[in-house]
Amino acid sequence: MIIMKSEATKEEIANVVKEIKKLGLKADVSQGEFRTVIGLVGDERKVDFSHFATLPGVKEAIPVESPYKLISREYGRRFNEEMGRRQIRAGNVSIGGDELVIIAGPCTIESKSQLFRIAEEVKKAGAHILRGGIFKPRSSVHSFQGLGANGREEAEQALRWLYEAGQRFEMPVVTEVRAEAQIDLVASYADIMQIGARNMYNQDLLASVARTGKPVLFKRHFGAGVDEFLSFAEYMAAEGNKDIILCERGILPVGKGKNYTRYTFDLSAIPAIQKETYLPVIADPSHATGRQDLIFNMSCAAVAAGACGLMIETHYDPSEALVDGMQMITPEELKEVITACRKIHELVAYKHKVKVISG
Amino acid sequence: MIIMKSEATKEEIANVVKEIKKLGLKADVSQGEFRTVIGLVGDERKVDFSHFATLPGVKEAIPVESPYKLISREYGRRFNEEMGRRQIRAGNVSIGGDELVIIAGPCTIESKSQLFRIAEEVKKAGAHILRGGIFKPRSSVHSFQGLGANGREEAEQALRWLYEAGQRFEMPVVTEVRAEAQIDLVASYADIMQIGARNMYNQDLLASVARTGKPVLFKRHFGAGVDEFLSFAEYMAAEGNKDIILCERGILPVGKGKNYTRYTFDLSAIPAIQKETYLPVIADPSHATGRQDLIFNMSCAAVAAGACGLMIETHYDPSEALVDGMQMITPEELKEVITACRKIHELVAYKHKVKVISG
Amino acid sequence: MIIMKSEATKEEIANVVKEIKKLGLKADVSQGEFRTVIGLVGDERKVDFSHFATLPGVKEAIPVESPYKLISREYGRRFNEEMGRRQIRAGNVSIGGDELVIIAGPCTIESKSQLFRIAEEVKKAGAHILRGGIFKPRSSVHSFQGLGANGREEAEQALRWLYEAGQRFEMPVVTEVRAEAQIDLVASYADIMQIGARNMYNQDLLASVARTGKPVLFKRHFGAGVDEFLSFAEYMAAEGNKDIILCERGILPVGKGKNYTRYTFDLSAIPAIQKETYLPVIADPSHATGRQDLIFNMSCAAVAAGACGLMIETHYDPSEALVDGMQMITPEELKEVITACRKIHELVAYKHKVKVISG
Amino acid sequence: MIIMKSEATKEEIANVVKEIKKLGLKADVSQGEFRTVIGLVGDERKVDFSHFATLPGVKEAIPVESPYKLISREYGRRFNEEMGRRQIRAGNVSIGGDELVIIAGPCTIESKSQLFRIAEEVKKAGAHILRGGIFKPRSSVHSFQGLGANGREEAEQALRWLYEAGQRFEMPVVTEVRAEAQIDLVASYADIMQIGARNMYNQDLLASVARTGKPVLFKRHFGAGVDEFLSFAEYMAAEGNKDIILCERGILPVGKGKNYTRYTFDLSAIPAIQKETYLPVIADPSHATGRQDLIFNMSCAAVAAGACGLMIETHYDPSEALVDGMQMITPEELKEVITACRKIHELVAYKHKVKVISG
Repeated sequence: MIIMKSEATKEEIANVVKEIKKLGLKADVSQGEFRTVIGLVGDERKVDFSHFATLPGVKEAIPVESPYKLISREYGRRFNEEMGRRQIRAGNVSIGGDELVIIAGPCTIESKSQLFRIAEEVKKAGAHILRGGIFKPRSSVHSFQGLGANGREEAEQALRWLYEAGQRFEMPVVTEVRAEAQIDLVASYADIMQIGARNMYNQDLLASVARTGKPVLFKRHFGAGVDEFLSFAEYMAAEGNKDIILCERGILPVGKGKNYTRYTFDLSAIPAIQKETYLPVIADPSHATGRQDLIFNMSCAAVAAGACGLMIETHYDPSEALVDGMQMITPEELKEVITACRKIHELVAYKHKVKVISG
Repeated sequence: MIIMKSEATKEEIANVVKEIKKLGLKADVSQGEFRTVIGLVGDERKVDFSHFATLPGVKEAIPVESPYKLISREYGRRFNEEMGRRQIRAGNVSIGGDELVIIAGPCTIESKSQLFRIAEEVKKAGAHILRGGIFKPRSSVHSFQGLGANGREEAEQALRWLYEAGQRFEMPVVTEVRAEAQIDLVASYADIMQIGARNMYNQDLLASVARTGKPVLFKRHFGAGVDEFLSFAEYMAAEGNKDIILCERGILPVGKGKNYTRYTFDLSAIPAIQKETYLPVIADPSHATGRQDLIFNMSCAAVAAGACGLMIETHYDPSEALVDGMQMITPEELKEVITACRKIHELVAYKHKVKVISG
Repeated sequence: MIIMKSEATKEEIANVVKEIKKLGLKADVSQGEFRTVIGLVGDERKVDFSHFATLPGVKEAIPVESPYKLISREYGRRFNEEMGRRQIRAGNVSIGGDELVIIAGPCTIESKSQLFRIAEEVKKAGAHILRGGIFKPRSSVHSFQGLGANGREEAEQALRWLYEAGQRFEMPVVTEVRAEAQIDLVASYADIMQIGARNMYNQDLLASVARTGKPVLFKRHFGAGVDEFLSFAEYMAAEGNKDIILCERGILPVGKGKNYTRYTFDLSAIPAIQKETYLPVIADPSHATGRQDLIFNMSCAAVAAGACGLMIETHYDPSEALVDGMQMITPEELKEVITACRKIHELVAYKHKVKVISG
Repeated sequence: MIIMKSEATKEEIANVVKEIKKLGLKADVSQGEFRTVIGLVGDERKVDFSHFATLPGVKEAIPVESPYKLISREYGRRFNEEMGRRQIRAGNVSIGGDELVIIAGPCTIESKSQLFRIAEEVKKAGAHILRGGIFKPRSSVHSFQGLGANGREEAEQALRWLYEAGQRFEMPVVTEVRAEAQIDLVASYADIMQIGARNMYNQDLLASVARTGKPVLFKRHFGAGVDEFLSFAEYMAAEGNKDIILCERGILPVGKGKNYTRYTFDLSAIPAIQKETYLPVIADPSHATGRQDLIFNMSCAAVAAGACGLMIETHYDPSEALVDGMQMITPEELKEVITACRKIHELVAYKHKVKVISG
């Protein structure tokens, strides 16, 4: 949609039309009382709207289509693709189906015994998937960066522990991959590859991870709007991998004074995203709030908002954890969360009942 | 807490101590390896920390206490006041007690028949309190500003309709008061006085409304952090009126690209606020999301997060409404929302069971 | 601009057209390959776009015109009004003309001697207008609220001091009016009425202050976008008062971690605003940064960005000030700021040379 | 700084002290009237404050030291390192020294002739360093991603053009490296390696680029606070490379309504950063504003704020550019910008005169 200035000349309008045609699109000129508006007819996703905004006589150039296509509901509808919510399989678990999926485990793997004890306890509490960080993204180079920072050997050892814990307690496993050089290693042991919030904009990593063909747990950057989040998910879909689990984990807090939470948990984004795409959406209350005393409420709220899964950091003794203890709950607390969330899921699931697509 | 620069001199430290004593407080000097930190002993709420930050040798001056006192849980605990959540009565309804409270009605009162029809239908759907706007705050002077803009007589007539609808359908009524000159009029007809988000920072209006002694429904500004919100509630408590119902209604969206909701519904703020104050917290999904298709999910989510009430804009035909039709639901949809929310409220209420204070 | 869903039916399109015609506007239907777009022909400022967004088949409803009219450059151009930048007179000073205007003085008036000493010194340093706070907006009810908080008599005394200092040192004076009840009093003594950032959204106060006919110094709210800021200036223009001096004073900081300034000084807004409206724009580096050590640089930057004036808090001894000492500079520092800013103003002024409108 | 709850027990305080000692630090307990505060004595940068916040009885755990060390002024001062601003050499140009440095060139290299024509013209206009994008980070996978997207051969050809243009017109050259796999290639041809805003959080890329030993032009992420930005610069310094040129390029806009600029150009960050670190800071008005009509003013403003260099996108015909035409200026306009900025630089440079460190 090209909006002309009120004083735009006929020549300027003709020029815009010419530029549109150059791109293989058609122009639809609409003459108003005050100004002329020119629509683009065709696939406008390839159009650089900032180019049109520089043409003489143009006031604004606004995209009408959303910037993603392959993962959008509208695209599906238009080209007669399958509808509903995509069901993504990882081992014996299905994300995006009828059952609420719980991903739990420590923020960071510290030792084999720590991991196995937590794995056993979260399984008993009702978790379906085991998580554990090996390559940790950290704000400060002086902080503990996970066992992955101690060289390939230790990284592989930690990955093997994760794999073995998954085998022992019958849970598929997920861990973050932070750089391209780690992809092969992580893909050998993990059932689901996690891309962290800080790497959401890393298009090269996204494409490479997608090409492994493994399901990807993809976290929203704390500075990304919903359409930007989906645009980057599209980078993976463009590689042919649509097994993408979207994860809301909090956005930048805004407001004068303090907000008492680490990020703003953007729960409205969950149903808003689900109306745009068929990819399943889960939520991470641990990182979003950064407060163990809010996990119960905010897990329930995320499920009520429509999340089809939760990722919750768990530790038998949060005050012993090397990283992020403040946001971890115990397996007992996890059980209480799961019990309440399952009931809420049953209450609200009928509202977003959709035809589920087999993975 | 005054943090000195690493190169601060003894004289500079002594000077800070002197300034603290001037205010009738004691100074607690703590000499570290790299720097000196000076604690303030006494009530630091009267201290202007930016003053201390200007003193020579000072690196930072950080308040440790929260900026509100009368409404804080800690204050209550310290001075042996009552604990728990304050229960506020308006007519036959109690906000902050065991039952989830639903406030519903049109965004804007347009006519007597419109109001009465909606009042009847929301009552049937299960609402407890009737809302309806008369003095509307609007971004543009060229938009419809509510019947209150047509002079005192029409304003009073609309208020009378609201009062009568409340009487007829046995619901206390709430409406926004936007300016000091409207207080007397509104207070003659409304059971609860609403202060809108845009007026949260209007300390003179807050004090004057508080002095009416009526319960106040107080909305968070979209640019206010939680502690700023509570600081301004304190302006009303300082006038002796603690019948304040806090309302989360969305904060400024942030993020590159579009978010697909009008504001960011800051649901984590609900339990976070409830841990700071004994005042009850409700939520307004209509303004927060601006989208009728998200009201069901986000109402459920707000209750799951711990809200003890909801304010939902309702209209029998949203596409006929003069203002904000996009965010209104029908009475039938309201009923569905209430049914689900009540069940969720029962599921989670035990987690924030508190001793309720009689109003 | 009404953008229809790709699956919208002919009936839905016809219905939107009908609704547009109801408002006395014309509809311009543009049929694309993928979707239909309907333009509104006529003055769309009265249109509630959220109403159209609720109609069946509508995907989005986007305003094309800016929400302000009376103060916009485009409006001027269209209806053959005067162009350029409006020059606003206050006493012997002209804001918006060729000369850079400096407003200086204490944050808060504390005593007659404090005010007179500062007035004398800022005049010598080159200031044109004297400022001094009497009714102070504060985040905490427990902080010092200015002499205006001690009753009408003390408020009037402080206003009289301000008036007398202005007379003695030949400077027009400006002070903030925070509530409608203070307008008459302030208007009796001040040459320019200031509306603070926290009151930007207070449409009733704006209209009442505008009706005094005095020039208004109007500060942008820290949570307001530029078009919202201008929309509220329009409330005053709609009362017939276009003597509005716009003031950028910092917006909410955003970003993970700390920013080291109180607000984000949005300097790009200065030329952006000046391209939208003929009203003059000034800047307040004191509140924007909250740091005395940044005032020199950020004053220079504001002038380079195109500000036609600066408001700078000044005190002979910032560490003695009761409020906001951290952001005040001394008269000697002010002189240095003025000297550098005048030279920069001369360097850049030719770029925004405009026909000046006589007040 | 560990702030205890007012009701914390002696045992809880003793436990915190024990935990501090475990880390090899000393605890400095300060008993106040209302609460106890415990200072950490030693290097707190390795401390995970969220761990302390989980301990019983703790209200808050606040870091006092900034999270970066190697690049901080304070660190330099404490350990008798060199002070002032670091001067970084690239070819015949010195960034951070007395002269204002101008980096100019096209957003994206499209062809050899386009690049050479622009290079010649920006050199004549007064530019010192040539820029040109080959690996372009884009929001949409459907947009043009630069010649680097067409395989290694075309990428290398474009890099060779850039190198040759630099040789011919005697300018060192800078281009963005977006992924680890591109580092070797880019390092063979570029004098300065650029890390874009979207990759600011990519710690693995940062470390690898730093290890090339080449100067790095490091852009602030649009969602990063100043201390987070510096924390990630520290990742490169930790690899032994302190030749880091920091670049402010705009942060996320915030505010109700529209802001009329692409990002918020955070100019106060420039002097604020320069007070924290000795690394030189430059500014990018092209990306920050996204508007060619604001480049003159905002370039002047950035220099007035204290930037020691500017990066400006330039094209002989912006309406022909494939990417970001809206923000590019012509070489003639560039010359005007440079002329004004040099004069402003001379006016303000004395204020931040520092001992320059040889690279």
